[in-house]
Amino acid sequence: MSQQQTLAAYCAEVGLDPAETLKIGGQYTPVLRYDNEVFISGQVPRVGDTVVVTGKVGDDCSEEAACHAARISALRCLILLQQTLGSLQPVARVLRMNVYVQSAAGFSRQSEVANAASEVLYRVLGEAGVHTRTSLGVYQLPKNAAVEIDMQVAVRHTDAASA
Amino acid sequence: MSQQQTLAAYCAEVGLDPAETLKIGGQYTPVLRYDNEVFISGQVPRVGDTVVVTGKVGDDCSEEAACHAARISALRCLILLQQTLGSLQPVARVLRMNVYVQSAAGFSRQSEVANAASEVLYRVLGEAGVHTRTSLGVYQLPKNAAVEIDMQVAVRHTDAASA
Amino acid sequence: MSQQQTLAAYCAEVGLDPAETLKIGGQYTPVLRYDNEVFISGQVPRVGDTVVVTGKVGDDCSEEAACHAARISALRCLILLQQTLGSLQPVARVLRMNVYVQSAAGFSRQSEVANAASEVLYRVLGEAGVHTRTSLGVYQLPKNAAVEIDMQVAVRHTDAASA
Repeated sequence: MSQQQTLAAYCAEVGLDPAETLKIGGQYTPVLRYDNEVFISGQVPRVGDTVVVTGKVGDDCSEEAACHAARISALRCLILLQQTLGSLQPVARVLRMNVYVQSAAGFSRQSEVANAASEVLYRVLGEAGVHTRTSLGVYQLPKNAAVEIDMQVAVRHTDAASA
Repeated sequence: MSQQQTLAAYCAEVGLDPAETLKIGGQYTPVLRYDNEVFISGQVPRVGDTVVVTGKVGDDCSEEAACHAARISALRCLILLQQTLGSLQPVARVLRMNVYVQSAAGFSRQSEVANAASEVLYRVLGEAGVHTRTSLGVYQLPKNAAVEIDMQVAVRHTDAASA
Repeated sequence: MSQQQTLAAYCAEVGLDPAETLKIGGQYTPVLRYDNEVFISGQVPRVGDTVVVTGKVGDDCSEEAACHAARISALRCLILLQQTLGSLQPVARVLRMNVYVQSAAGFSRQSEVANAASEVLYRVLGEAGVHTRTSLGVYQLPKNAAVEIDMQVAVRHTDAASA
């Protein structure tokens, strides 16, 4: 399967549409390319208009649900990347992924939740998806989301820059 | 109004002096330019020697006060940027802004607080101020600050680099 | 003392081996170089197989222990940097360090904890170690670690890139 097909298959599993325009509010942008880098705003596990996984992980949100949330957030980042670049082909390397887990007191398996997102990157992008990562347990996330993920991505140099 | 004038007007509203040397402690720097990027250390809503908005947002700090804090933190970033570059003219794009909100349990309107900072960037910098963003609710911030903001900014290529 | 000797001396103090392969799990990497930048994944104060400083800073972990944790995390970043570049000589500038402190309610001395890490960078790298920084008090960290630190580092342009 091509990267695009792998992404589409993954999105179908969780109910995401890769062609959908991802909504945000406020005077910022969900994604921007500058020279050969792409920055992606923090993505919560929203499908359509709904944040589908909410709550404190380790309390009213299970670790399994949090992994599902992490996959959706990672897929949203990949959708934004694909929409910005036309395809995932120009991706040279995911430089950094930050994984924020809305955590209950005593929950310290943020790395395990983040692994679900890391696996999505690797399965879709292969070696270009092997990234550095920071996983944190935060107190509250926007809209009571269980997980939020952002990324910084390098684009192949041969590809024309759009500042 | 020029960008400089817009920034000065904003600063006057909240009691900040754009010519002030912003204080920090420790063996780090509030701002650094390397090649065509500027990195700005996390800014709390300090005016002069005082952190003017403290407490947990949603509990002993109102959302309105938190928006005020977000504006001050964003303005401090712009002051540092202007002082480093001589003016805001060389700013090509704010690549990323992270907004950390010291949140009470159950407060999940971090995006709304962050919007106040995003608006400052857009009003002062125009299109160059349209950034990617991650908003988080953290448990504690240095000096009990209600908000902390950091940024990564791209500078126009035609401008000479100072490594 | 050379940078390498300074790092080795520091590592010996806390029980770290600069030649050790630092372990991680998951489909990501502890460090990557792309062009002239190095990204380092979040490092907890692990020595060998053990996270040696755990708990909530300000409660069951003292500020002094947290400073020790911050030093170990910073040293792990420097070890990864040295292993990736062959030596610390090619380091042009530490652009950004994020310091995450697992904080008890009411603990707001994250900057003081971060200072211990900043000092390590300055002592080992000199001016190239003067960085921008964001210090945050988070609710939970992976493996109940007291501190987590990540970095973004610029490498000298004259040095050959390895993508």
